[in-house]
Amino acid sequence: MNNNDIKYMQLALKLAKKGVGKVSPNPQVGCVIVRNNKIIATGYHKHFGGSHAEIDALNNCKNPEGATMYVNLEPCCHYNKKTPPCVPEIIKLGIKKVVVAMKDPNPLVSGKGIKQLRVNNVKVEIGILEEEAEKLNETYIKYITKKIPFVILKLAFSIDGKTKTFTGDSKWISSESSRKIVHKLRSITDAILVGSNTVLVDNPSLTSHGIGKNPRRVVLDANLETPFNSNVLNNEAKTIIATSKQSDRKKKEKLSNLGVKILELPDNNGFIDLKKLLVELGKLEISSLIVEGGETVARAFLKARLVDKINFFICPKIINNEKYVKDAIIVKNVSVKKIENDLLYEGYLK
Amino acid sequence: MNNNDIKYMQLALKLAKKGVGKVSPNPQVGCVIVRNNKIIATGYHKHFGGSHAEIDALNNCKNPEGATMYVNLEPCCHYNKKTPPCVPEIIKLGIKKVVVAMKDPNPLVSGKGIKQLRVNNVKVEIGILEEEAEKLNETYIKYITKKIPFVILKLAFSIDGKTKTFTGDSKWISSESSRKIVHKLRSITDAILVGSNTVLVDNPSLTSHGIGKNPRRVVLDANLETPFNSNVLNNEAKTIIATSKQSDRKKKEKLSNLGVKILELPDNNGFIDLKKLLVELGKLEISSLIVEGGETVARAFLKARLVDKINFFICPKIINNEKYVKDAIIVKNVSVKKIENDLLYEGYLK
Repeated sequence: MNNNDIKYMQLALKLAKKGVGKVSPNPQVGCVIVRNNKIIATGYHKHFGGSHAEIDALNNCKNPEGATMYVNLEPCCHYNKKTPPCVPEIIKLGIKKVVVAMKDPNPLVSGKGIKQLRVNNVKVEIGILEEEAEKLNETYIKYITKKIPFVILKLAFSIDGKTKTFTGDSKWISSESSRKIVHKLRSITDAILVGSNTVLVDNPSLTSHGIGKNPRRVVLDANLETPFNSNVLNNEAKTIIATSKQSDRKKKEKLSNLGVKILELPDNNGFIDLKKLLVELGKLEISSLIVEGGETVARAFLKARLVDKINFFICPKIINNEKYVKDAIIVKNVSVKKIENDLLYEGYLK
Repeated sequence: MNNNDIKYMQLALKLAKKGVGKVSPNPQVGCVIVRNNKIIATGYHKHFGGSHAEIDALNNCKNPEGATMYVNLEPCCHYNKKTPPCVPEIIKLGIKKVVVAMKDPNPLVSGKGIKQLRVNNVKVEIGILEEEAEKLNETYIKYITKKIPFVILKLAFSIDGKTKTFTGDSKWISSESSRKIVHKLRSITDAILVGSNTVLVDNPSLTSHGIGKNPRRVVLDANLETPFNSNVLNNEAKTIIATSKQSDRKKKEKLSNLGVKILELPDNNGFIDLKKLLVELGKLEISSLIVEGGETVARAFLKARLVDKINFFICPKIINNEKYVKDAIIVKNVSVKKIENDLLYEGYLK
């Protein structure tokens, strides 16, 4: 691995990122073609169903013969998908070397693409910026291997660990900038999930608030308590309600007629089986899911060990036993230090 | 303010810090004497009752006449203390200019030292690295102006905000390195406070565990429940028990005989008046106090708005509803980003 390899792979990763939120459940892939240490073409996977990054780059390339290709994921070799495989094209057009950040975890590829290239005298190098590549496609890696979505638990809480006051007030614990980041996160995630209690108490719309595309909305609602006039049922995005098999059949029909997708799932004392829910969401090509609460739902996902990643917004307020967020003590001059894996959070109350 | 001023004041601050934990309730002060852009002497306040930094530096200086003095706190001019005032010495020895980071908030000085210097034709410049100087002596500033200790609330909790599991297990939420930092903090603080419940449940010794001097130990114990064989009553450090006026007189006597200082304070339904407690601790020359819990005590100090600073150790564990800390979910690959004043805490659970 030399500095040039790193430089070109960094560019491939940068290009790959342009596909974020547009290619799901496909991976984000970027590609750079280089000859004599000069970039002669670039490409990336722009949207689901569109050309793969390698083909996009080859299409942008006058004469790829003898050149080296940098790509952050092993080129594909399988046929049961929207576009033809990349490996035969790479071979045909005379690329002499392919530098790959990581193997494709897709069981249909998983080393076969690399093998096919090598058998056809294309040199292959693997592992350049592998960690970065894996992080970029963490969602894809989970989904393609487990067939269930990558689950991000998002919570915002005060520095004394409260998502709301004891009276239920939660507006707003986090800053406007943090909420914007959450909207951005929603726009690049396939679906967002809350419990029916959050719908009843906060009546959120769960959209990306105009920042990008809206995720599908999933409401965990064993007893079908979601009111018909809830914001989650507006026409800004598609909605899925996960409910128990026993819940009110008439309501189910009415919701279906409103365009809501009803998922009937086994439950345990009114708690939907979350693992089975994820399997169903996987079947609907939801490869990433943000769980946004409330606390009961968060706890249930944690308890069932179904969370892959946490995104916790820790806010400089001490709610203690105040009734309203506005009465919280504000923490000033916050500084944070890493001590082993702990954080030392220092701040002033006066 | 030029770069040299900053450089010399940084050195004065660095020297001042050497007195940490040794000069309380005095401020930490360092002093640098410079002529023709060359350091000709340095000094600092080494221990309570010892020479002030200015005198220490002047003692180290062959010929201070015409030189410039850098000192992080206004030189003193008052007499009712252990050592004679610095200002007359500075004038007598012919220092021509004094650069001061901050005014002394001590009402007995507070600008009078500066005035006296100027009246005697010593040039004075104020405000170089003022913020750093104020932070260094935050404890002193509070104590000298309010006569009550600077209160640091120290807690260690899991990323889901728990200081213990629902069964009371708390060993260990924080890392060994964090606990060492706490011991270090104890060694430079005048006193440490816990509630009697913490004594009953955890039986801590509340020492600095050999890292430095031990703070005085304060137990909030309205009903005198601290057992006579508790570790807080061992002979490693002095102990103060804050109790109600009504609590058992015989126990009070017995504790006094063991060398424990008993503070009798007004209480409200068994909750000691914390403001009055701080006044009493102030009278005992306790200028800094770490409140280490448990949660009830922490809440009471917060509720009464008596906390100046928080030191929260946020640990990469999710306790959720596990019985034991050892069963907590470990958060891996933690990264932290500042979003306005919020923190975005990202980590992986698998």
